[in-house]
Amino acid sequence: MNPVYLDNNATTRVDAEVVAAMLPFFTEQFGNPSSMHAFGADVGGAVKAARKSLQSLIGAEFDHEIVFTSGGTESDNASILSALEANPDRDEIITSSVEHPAILSLCAHLEKTRGIKVHIIPVDAKGRLDRDAYSAALSPKVAIASIMWANNETGTIFPVAELAEEAKAVGALFHTDAVQAVGKVPVDLKSTAIDMLSLSGHKLHGPKGIGALYVKRGVRFRSQIKGGQQERGRRGGTENTPGIVGLGKAAELAALHMEEEQTRVKALRDRLEKGLLQRIPNTFITGDVDNRLPNTCNIACEYIEGEAILLLLNRAGIAASSGSACTSGSLEPSHVLRAMNIPYTAAHGATRFSFSRDNVDEDVDRVLDAMPPIIEQLRQLSPFWQGAGEAPAEFKPVYA
Amino acid sequence: MNPVYLDNNATTRVDAEVVAAMLPFFTEQFGNPSSMHAFGADVGGAVKAARKSLQSLIGAEFDHEIVFTSGGTESDNASILSALEANPDRDEIITSSVEHPAILSLCAHLEKTRGIKVHIIPVDAKGRLDRDAYSAALSPKVAIASIMWANNETGTIFPVAELAEEAKAVGALFHTDAVQAVGKVPVDLKSTAIDMLSLSGHKLHGPKGIGALYVKRGVRFRSQIKGGQQERGRRGGTENTPGIVGLGKAAELAALHMEEEQTRVKALRDRLEKGLLQRIPNTFITGDVDNRLPNTCNIACEYIEGEAILLLLNRAGIAASSGSACTSGSLEPSHVLRAMNIPYTAAHGATRFSFSRDNVDEDVDRVLDAMPPIIEQLRQLSPFWQGAGEAPAEFKPVYA
Repeated sequence: MNPVYLDNNATTRVDAEVVAAMLPFFTEQFGNPSSMHAFGADVGGAVKAARKSLQSLIGAEFDHEIVFTSGGTESDNASILSALEANPDRDEIITSSVEHPAILSLCAHLEKTRGIKVHIIPVDAKGRLDRDAYSAALSPKVAIASIMWANNETGTIFPVAELAEEAKAVGALFHTDAVQAVGKVPVDLKSTAIDMLSLSGHKLHGPKGIGALYVKRGVRFRSQIKGGQQERGRRGGTENTPGIVGLGKAAELAALHMEEEQTRVKALRDRLEKGLLQRIPNTFITGDVDNRLPNTCNIACEYIEGEAILLLLNRAGIAASSGSACTSGSLEPSHVLRAMNIPYTAAHGATRFSFSRDNVDEDVDRVLDAMPPIIEQLRQLSPFWQGAGEAPAEFKPVYA
Repeated sequence: MNPVYLDNNATTRVDAEVVAAMLPFFTEQFGNPSSMHAFGADVGGAVKAARKSLQSLIGAEFDHEIVFTSGGTESDNASILSALEANPDRDEIITSSVEHPAILSLCAHLEKTRGIKVHIIPVDAKGRLDRDAYSAALSPKVAIASIMWANNETGTIFPVAELAEEAKAVGALFHTDAVQAVGKVPVDLKSTAIDMLSLSGHKLHGPKGIGALYVKRGVRFRSQIKGGQQERGRRGGTENTPGIVGLGKAAELAALHMEEEQTRVKALRDRLEKGLLQRIPNTFITGDVDNRLPNTCNIACEYIEGEAILLLLNRAGIAASSGSACTSGSLEPSHVLRAMNIPYTAAHGATRFSFSRDNVDEDVDRVLDAMPPIIEQLRQLSPFWQGAGEAPAEFKPVYA
C-alpha cells in the first residue's frame, strides 16, 4: 500500500515542475548573480522572474518588496529584530499565545536578555484572538505587532488586515507569519496595511532552505545578516539561486491551484472530519471551524495520547502530526491547544491531518478505515476512558 | 567555443553526483526530519550521514560540533554575535583588514550601534597579517578574534592554528572564515584551538543556500536564529535536507579530490601565472605567493581598469573576477588590495582567476591567448601607460 501523507503543514512534497525548474541552476546556470560575467548575468534574470512570481502570489505592489531569506524562521526573526532596531524609542512587542516558536522563542529571549516588554495576547477556546486585549496592548511604545495569518496546528485564520490597521493607528509596525497561509488562501498585500510578511518555500511545494520576507515599501528595515549588498543590502550572502527559482515556480503553481485548494482539497478535509466525528465518540474539532485554512483538520480524541495515535497511524502507513513538527518529542500537549484551554484529557489526544493538492480520495478512505480501531484500541488501555461523557458543546463543529 | 569558467572562488558548478544525491530529498524523502512518522525518520538518517562527511572533511572531533546554516555569511555573523552574547564582560573584537564583508560589515555595524571596539589588524604588501599588531590587540577584553583561513581574492593563507593558540591564552574565542579554504587545502580542526569555523556549500561544488558553522565542544554558543529545537537548539528552522545531503556529498567528493587540488589544479594555476607574467609586461602577482591556495591567481596589470579587462574577457568567453563578487559593481579597487597597499594604478587592474577540479589545460591556453591582446588594447587607451617602469620588486613572484 502507498503511504498516505497528511502532514502537509509540516512540509510538502516538492512539485516535480519545481525540481525541473531548479535543476539547470545547479550545474549549468550556476554562476553567482553578483558576478559581472555571463555566468552571473544569466542567473540574475531568473532571480528577477522568481521575485515577480512571488510578488504576484502575495499581491505585493512592487517586486523589490520581496527579500529572499533562508526560510520562515529567519524571516520571522528578521522582522521583529529589524523593527526594534529601526525604532529604538519603542521597546514593546505584541504577539499571540499561539504563534510559531520562531516568534515566541525569539520574544522570550528578547524579554529575558533585553528587557523588551512582550504582550502575549490570549485566544479563546476556538483559537480566536482576544481583540480587546490586542487593542488594549497597542500604544506608542509598541515597535511591532506580530500575529500569524493562520495557525499551523488548527488552521484558524486571524483578521490580520484589521489588526494591521489598528497597529498603524499607533505607529506600530505590523508583521504576519503567513507561512501556513501563502499558497492555501488568497493573499493580497497591497490592499492592506501589513508592513511585513513571512513565507516559506517548503510549505507550498517548493524547496526547503528558501523563504521570503515581504517588506512594504517605505518601511525602515535593518538587515539581520550582514555581508555583501545582495537583496539591496537587506540580506547578505550569495543568493540561493536554485532555491529562489524553485520558490518562484512554486508560487506560480500555487496561484494556478488556488481554486483547487478552496474546493477539492477542502472537500477532502471536510469528508475526513465528518467521517471521523461520525465514527468515533468523544471526539471534536479544534480551532475556528468557520474560519480556517481549507486543508487543516485538528481533531481531539479524548482520553488518549496523541503520540500513540501517531505511532499506530504510522504503522498503517499514514503520516500525520500531533502539532508542530518543531516541538515533536515533547510530552506536553502543544502550546497552541493549551492556549485555547482545550481540556487536558483531549489536548493530549489531538491529531492534525493536513492536506495538499497531492492528496486524493483514497487517502481519506484509508484514514477513515484506520483511525476508529486505533482509537478504540487505545481507549481500552486508558484508565480515564470509562465513564467519559460528551465532548464540550463549544467545540462541536458546525457544517453547512 | 565552450565558455571558460575561472571564477570558482565566487561560486562553483555543483557536482553532478551532488545533484544526484539531493534529488530524492525533494520529491521522495521530502519529510520534515523533526516529524515522528516514517517520512521524517528516513530523512533524519541522511542528515546524520551528511554531518559525518563534513566532520571528516574538516577533522572535527565530534559530528555534533557541526551546525548547518544557510551559508558562509550566516555562519560568520553567528560566530561573532554568539561570542559577544556568551561573553558579556568582553566587548572587543579582533579581525583583519582583508576579511570578507560578512565579517567586516558586521563589525562596522557593531562598532557603530553597540560601541564594540573592533581591532582591525593590518596586512603587509603580500597580504600577510601583522602578527605584532595581532598580539598587541589581544587582551581579556576581547570576546573573539576572527581571522580568515584563506583570503578570497589573493588566496593568501593565514596561520590560523597559531593565532587561535594566542587567542586562547587570553581567554578569547577564535573563529575562522574558512569558506575559501575548506575543500581546497587540508583542514584538521581537532588538532587546533580553533573554536569556530565557517564554511559554505557552493564554494566546494555543493549547492548554494547551505553552509555550516563548526562549534568546538564546550564552546558556549548562543543561537542567532531562534525557533524550534533543530540543530540541538543552535539554529532554528526546518532543516534544508536536500542542501544538507548535497553538502555532505560535496564534502565526500572534496576529500577524494584533495590531492588533485594540490597537484593538477595547482599546476594549471601556476602555468597560467607564469605564462601571463612572461607575456605581459608591468604585471605582478598579488598575495603571498609562497603560502596561498593552490587554485587562486590574482594578477595586477598596471595602468588599466580591471572592469574593462573582465568585460573583454567575458566577450572572449572567459569568466573571471576583479575581486569579491559581493562587491562587484563598485568603482573602488577592492578593500583587500587597498589594505595591502598595492599601488593604486595596479590595484585597479587586478584580475582574479580561480580554478577548480572542473578546469582543464585548454582553459589555461584560452586565457594565455586572450589576455595579452586585451591588456595591450586597454593600455593603448590608458593615459598613464606611457613611461611606465618595472613592477615593484616586492610583488615579484618566486617560483621553484
